[in-house]
Amino acid sequence: MAFQGQIITCKAAIAWEPNKPLVIQDVQVAPPQAGEVRIKILFTALCHTDAYTWSGKLSFRSSIILWSAIHLLPLQDPEGLFPCILGHEAAGIVESVGEGVTEVQPGDHVIPCYQAECRECKFCKSGKTNLCGKVRAATGVGVMMSDRKSRFSINGTPIYHFMGTSTFSQYTVVHDVSVAKIDPKAPLEKVCLLGCGVPTGSNSEDCLIMKFPIPSVVELANGQGIQGSISLGAVWNTAKVEPGSIVAVFGLGTVGLAVAEGAKAAGASRIIGIDIDSKKFERGTSLTLPYSPKNFGVSEFVNPKDHERPIQQVLVDLTDGGVDFSFECIGNVSVMRAALECCHKGWGTSVILGVAASGQEISTRPFQLVTGRTWKGTAFGGFKSRSQVPWLVEKYMKKEIKVDEYITHTLTLGDINKAFDLMHEGNCLRCVLEVHT
Amino acid sequence: MAFQGQIITCKAAIAWEPNKPLVIQDVQVAPPQAGEVRIKILFTALCHTDAYTWSGKLSFRSSIILWSAIHLLPLQDPEGLFPCILGHEAAGIVESVGEGVTEVQPGDHVIPCYQAECRECKFCKSGKTNLCGKVRAATGVGVMMSDRKSRFSINGTPIYHFMGTSTFSQYTVVHDVSVAKIDPKAPLEKVCLLGCGVPTGSNSEDCLIMKFPIPSVVELANGQGIQGSISLGAVWNTAKVEPGSIVAVFGLGTVGLAVAEGAKAAGASRIIGIDIDSKKFERGTSLTLPYSPKNFGVSEFVNPKDHERPIQQVLVDLTDGGVDFSFECIGNVSVMRAALECCHKGWGTSVILGVAASGQEISTRPFQLVTGRTWKGTAFGGFKSRSQVPWLVEKYMKKEIKVDEYITHTLTLGDINKAFDLMHEGNCLRCVLEVHT
Repeated sequence: MAFQGQIITCKAAIAWEPNKPLVIQDVQVAPPQAGEVRIKILFTALCHTDAYTWSGKLSFRSSIILWSAIHLLPLQDPEGLFPCILGHEAAGIVESVGEGVTEVQPGDHVIPCYQAECRECKFCKSGKTNLCGKVRAATGVGVMMSDRKSRFSINGTPIYHFMGTSTFSQYTVVHDVSVAKIDPKAPLEKVCLLGCGVPTGSNSEDCLIMKFPIPSVVELANGQGIQGSISLGAVWNTAKVEPGSIVAVFGLGTVGLAVAEGAKAAGASRIIGIDIDSKKFERGTSLTLPYSPKNFGVSEFVNPKDHERPIQQVLVDLTDGGVDFSFECIGNVSVMRAALECCHKGWGTSVILGVAASGQEISTRPFQLVTGRTWKGTAFGGFKSRSQVPWLVEKYMKKEIKVDEYITHTLTLGDINKAFDLMHEGNCLRCVLEVHT
Repeated sequence: MAFQGQIITCKAAIAWEPNKPLVIQDVQVAPPQAGEVRIKILFTALCHTDAYTWSGKLSFRSSIILWSAIHLLPLQDPEGLFPCILGHEAAGIVESVGEGVTEVQPGDHVIPCYQAECRECKFCKSGKTNLCGKVRAATGVGVMMSDRKSRFSINGTPIYHFMGTSTFSQYTVVHDVSVAKIDPKAPLEKVCLLGCGVPTGSNSEDCLIMKFPIPSVVELANGQGIQGSISLGAVWNTAKVEPGSIVAVFGLGTVGLAVAEGAKAAGASRIIGIDIDSKKFERGTSLTLPYSPKNFGVSEFVNPKDHERPIQQVLVDLTDGGVDFSFECIGNVSVMRAALECCHKGWGTSVILGVAASGQEISTRPFQLVTGRTWKGTAFGGFKSRSQVPWLVEKYMKKEIKVDEYITHTLTLGDINKAFDLMHEGNCLRCVLEVHT
């Protein structure tokens, strides 16, 4: 309680401008205001969302213009979003809370959630979605809701928040609707992944059917990063895979593996993994990665390169008419089409998890839908963040879902630039940073 | 029973070749073989499916090639499909039955169903679709399943079946899985519409947002004509509209009106009709058609021509974020996109009823699905034909669904060419032909 009500000066990784190395330096973290929580971050993982934002491949300017247009908001100053503190996949302990915060208190173990859950807005009360509208207008533009200001500064210069979480800092301030309180017995160095999950494409150079494209920050700002826990949710909440189902998983990166895991847990009878890298199916025996797709439930492997016909046709033949459920775990719009069209006529459902390059579009003949197929997508796997992240932690504690298996590297916050380099190398599924060392 | 086991010679409207007037002449109708039913057709309505096929706007050749490709069947002789007997929306009385037919007997009042229901195939047993695979391989190429031959001939020249129904004949032969037995008290001159429904675009020249495009016979052969009863099913079975929902109906032709009727019955709180013809909203007062969209439940009207912004944006504003359900009742791929994109983020569902021009594709940004929208279509409204057509007849008898309101003209089979002309004129929703006069 030593810092309660006071500014904390601590280390953080600052992104001063796009595509320049992050700088570890002292940052001032203001006390939480009403409805806010200040968290001591203990462990944070890296995600491609952070990498893309930082890389400058997609400018904040264009993304925020798009974001504002979609949310029908007046356009805020898009130039103000750098410098910022990235990071959104972490775990820590509540340091102090602002006025009116009742659900957590100092000392609670928590996971910050970039997908909020206020339980009051139209979205939360609908019972039909896990999206939440309460703080989006602020988190999308790097500030806090109450005063539209940042809680981070360096010698008076405001440093913007990112995705409402900014976990590349020893202390961060988030909205109370974005905090999931978890079992204090859970190992924070593992369960930090459940706030977001394992990013697909960590080994993007070798594990994706197409080279991983640039996502739109619009999608990301709304909580559509592609992650392991999202993958589970896509299977359980969005597709509602039934026992005995035939499932196709496009892309055997981390997301695809987690989809397979979820499908197996749901009782799928066949789980067909599709990837252009046949080595991946043997992973665990021939590569340095410890686990094979078979460990995650993949029962059959199809390499599109082994066939002259379109992959959807191959799958339709292989399954006597098509699969019951398919999941696109890559982010390629052509693969999204194949994933829909390999579904069984009459009932097949295809779920998009991959984040496509900005401006790209999916297409198909309407006949595909008119004959009974359904095309969906998922945001954070349909999980209600504050309500269900603790549940996911419990499932992990009971060994019902995998987390450890995705961790291939551990480093410290000071090594964050090295950690980003690792993300682009093969065989790195996920890297966890220890924040206080 | 006079004709049982014998060839019947009767009048039929023969389509000898595309785009030439139908010819009323004597045709020989063979007795039903095992699993077949010969029906005395009393009333038949005209549908755009018939008109398109007959018009030759889409060649049988191209459609059958496509059809065969999709169904992975060896390509049959596509040139053999003319001459044929069109018609698929009718009611009649069973004249005789072939061996093994148990569910109907001579004298039963029936509606032939182009969408079969065998209750044995993978589709029927799935519990997830109304599609049926049993006789499709034959009905799609104008013959009967048992011997791949037609039951119609003229002086020894075979005349092909159409959609497994061929109701433009005083007698027809259909598969027993394509016959719905109905209440004998139901007026056949009305309920004939429930075997298919009222075709959208009957007054296509003035009632569609875009001029009605050419559908693919692939879709039609699979039972995706667009009809009134389909519209009800799209609302009840496919979209599952809930009480209090906000519904958008694109296109206030017959299909759109039936969707509105279904949405009203399902308890929708707002039903927004979208059409570029504002006169249509006043129909019933200013035009010769007797009913206004308001009679079918449309509560608000939006004309895209009154707005500079895209119609999806207008609807999102009008509904505080988007509609809960939308229905595309036109067949225009741009409108299909608008219908999806006007849906509420998180849960909005869009259903395609319209049949798009052959080769046209729907597109959107995957973001639209990833943020929780669902894109679906419907085939015969999800109704199980043999099981549910009788139920629809019952609902009509109890005045729970409209049928009479769509009938604007009645003629005889001899006037069939005139009836087709009427279809292309304004103010004709549906024309019923008396077959025996």
